[in-house]
Amino acid sequence: MTKANLFYAQSGGVTSVINSSACGVIETARKHKDKIGKVYAGLNGIVGALNEELVDTNKETTSAIASLRSTPAGAFGSCRYKLKTYQENKREYERLMEVFQAHNIRYFLYNGGGDSQDTANKIAQLSLEKGFPINCIGIPKTVDNDLPVTDNCPGFGSVAKYVAVSIREAGLDVASMCESSTKVFVMEVMGRHAGWIAGAAGLATEQEGDAPHIILFPEIAFNREKFLKKVKSCVKKYGYCAIVVSEGAQNEDGSFLADAGGVDAFGHVQLGGVAPFVANMIKDELGYKYHWAVADYLQRSARHIASATDVDQAYAVGKAAVEFSLAGKTAVMPTIVRGSGKKYSWKIGEANLSDVANVEKMMPRKYISRDGFHITDEAREYFSPLIQGEDYPKFRNGIPQYARLKKQLEKKKLKKWKAS
Amino acid sequence: MTKANLFYAQSGGVTSVINSSACGVIETARKHKDKIGKVYAGLNGIVGALNEELVDTNKETTSAIASLRSTPAGAFGSCRYKLKTYQENKREYERLMEVFQAHNIRYFLYNGGGDSQDTANKIAQLSLEKGFPINCIGIPKTVDNDLPVTDNCPGFGSVAKYVAVSIREAGLDVASMCESSTKVFVMEVMGRHAGWIAGAAGLATEQEGDAPHIILFPEIAFNREKFLKKVKSCVKKYGYCAIVVSEGAQNEDGSFLADAGGVDAFGHVQLGGVAPFVANMIKDELGYKYHWAVADYLQRSARHIASATDVDQAYAVGKAAVEFSLAGKTAVMPTIVRGSGKKYSWKIGEANLSDVANVEKMMPRKYISRDGFHITDEAREYFSPLIQGEDYPKFRNGIPQYARLKKQLEKKKLKKWKAS
Repeated sequence: MTKANLFYAQSGGVTSVINSSACGVIETARKHKDKIGKVYAGLNGIVGALNEELVDTNKETTSAIASLRSTPAGAFGSCRYKLKTYQENKREYERLMEVFQAHNIRYFLYNGGGDSQDTANKIAQLSLEKGFPINCIGIPKTVDNDLPVTDNCPGFGSVAKYVAVSIREAGLDVASMCESSTKVFVMEVMGRHAGWIAGAAGLATEQEGDAPHIILFPEIAFNREKFLKKVKSCVKKYGYCAIVVSEGAQNEDGSFLADAGGVDAFGHVQLGGVAPFVANMIKDELGYKYHWAVADYLQRSARHIASATDVDQAYAVGKAAVEFSLAGKTAVMPTIVRGSGKKYSWKIGEANLSDVANVEKMMPRKYISRDGFHITDEAREYFSPLIQGEDYPKFRNGIPQYARLKKQLEKKKLKKWKAS
Repeated sequence: MTKANLFYAQSGGVTSVINSSACGVIETARKHKDKIGKVYAGLNGIVGALNEELVDTNKETTSAIASLRSTPAGAFGSCRYKLKTYQENKREYERLMEVFQAHNIRYFLYNGGGDSQDTANKIAQLSLEKGFPINCIGIPKTVDNDLPVTDNCPGFGSVAKYVAVSIREAGLDVASMCESSTKVFVMEVMGRHAGWIAGAAGLATEQEGDAPHIILFPEIAFNREKFLKKVKSCVKKYGYCAIVVSEGAQNEDGSFLADAGGVDAFGHVQLGGVAPFVANMIKDELGYKYHWAVADYLQRSARHIASATDVDQAYAVGKAAVEFSLAGKTAVMPTIVRGSGKKYSWKIGEANLSDVANVEKMMPRKYISRDGFHITDEAREYFSPLIQGEDYPKFRNGIPQYARLKKQLEKKKLKKWKAS
């Protein structure tokens, strides 16, 4: 194969380590200058390919690229943009092929969740049909930890660490004040469909009485009476009650907790706000003084407290994606494979995109305690290695210094794209 | 003076470094065993003295005491309990004197904000009148940074660092998604009366376009029209708008922002929730997709990202308090004095409690930019040194390991206390 260019794009909600994958991609590609010419990154994800807005990463310095390893969020921009099926929107796929051909792009690396793996898979098939074969490799990324095949998803370990650290710290705060002040603290975390993130917060409980005392999972239908009883018993036993609630916590009928009873003051469907809802319910029923926090984007961008394991794995899947593509592979995704030994180990594996695309991996019931309010030892064994190690960014003037890229665009060769 | 015991108590809202002050107190006292017998800590603050619940810190190991330096919140418990005036509640003061006499306590160190300094001052005067002189020393502590005389308050630098780091990280998140998703992010921070914490978040703006783009201070009456115009112009210019809002942000008439227009869904006076209020206002008027975060206790307990300067200063005021008391001083508080040189330096000074008690230091108008939406260079010069340096706690299994104390109580000698 003659020298060709590589196109890399970030997709969907960002994480604090997705740029570590970008770093893995670019640094590895730079080691193979005989085979890979330019490494382009899509400006704002796949939309950058449609618009022919290709960031020429070769223009970035070695140190700028290295600093991506410790920079949160999407350095080239990401997007919420799902390509329709080829049948539904032929034009889009043909435009992508046109852009790839015009810029001699034979490697397509797509860094995202389930939807993105699906897109990469479709493009792989199409490129073969069109006689312009492109090696399409998916790179796993999602704080939601819901991709199948892989043991875990890069991005998850760091948000898991953030929530465990945060509830431990806030729990100590409440513990020290509960005698005369706040007795209940509610922290809302992400996870619309699955309780992976909420569950990881349970790692903060290392001894009887440690926060969090209650976790509300999307997987367990909310039982108001049982919940309030548990809150009361925690306050009685420990003096306070620290609660982690998943934004996806649901009622028996599948409706989101915060949407019920017309309590969402703004009438918006957008999630967020289940923490004040739960805190208020407790106040009304039990009379306890409360505080609540909604970490929102803070949790998925908190690179300052990223898991070193997560940073390493994110880098490794980026590196592996380039190696896979150079090996002539296509329609595959590097995965994290957990070793079977007692001591945690991991290596890179390989999954077919067709097995990954559009499949959600839910948290097993056996990870949730019998009463539905905490995690089991089996869950601890799964979660714990993923938050190991600290990988602090560089600080200057007391603030982390994150990558500032030039993001210089390649000269366009095609007509302007008009979305239909 | 013969050997006497020392009583230390934590008061009011805790911080991520108040235990560093406790560490400074106990470690220093342990170096003066010729003069100081036992170091007692009040269980849950001054209430512990009233109830004669005195934690015998001599029972704690050297390493447990050392670990207080990197443990957030109040290790001995704090309380929201303000003593009335001597005239109003003579019984309380006399009970305190009784407990101090019964346990030969001649040193009283009170670690808190303005109210606590007032209490310490009253006890100092009373002990002289009663002929059982006690050396009463205040130890400054408050995330609100509102104590007078001292250049800054231990506790503030760390929350300042947390908010600056958090808005930088979340800002990058929004920046990377704004082309196709969230355009406005609102982060609510503490500061009921003054904008010190909100202002410190402004340190994250190091270059044109950096988050935060807008800060809403309690000091600047909210102007809806001007604010919305500014949001719109930020989105136009930078693609997104990152906003920091103080929980104390106010309308022209002095009412809190989130209380206006009946938007507080729960009808509670308790603050918190101005972020969703502001986000919703923007959505309604400008139609932008938004996200919001309320850090609440996470910000003041975030020992994992504490300012090293703050940790050092918190320790130093604890140490100085013991030294002051051994030098026979009373009714004073160690302060932080900023050096006049270009390079930041600080040393310990001394303030009379009568000058500190019940005085709130507000943020000067000159720290806020002319348009009222950001901080000035003068503010940067003030804030920046306070967040310098990282002082990471020890981690085990990916989670910070914080002090676990025995908190063994001294045997009681008096009758049970009944609050009137």
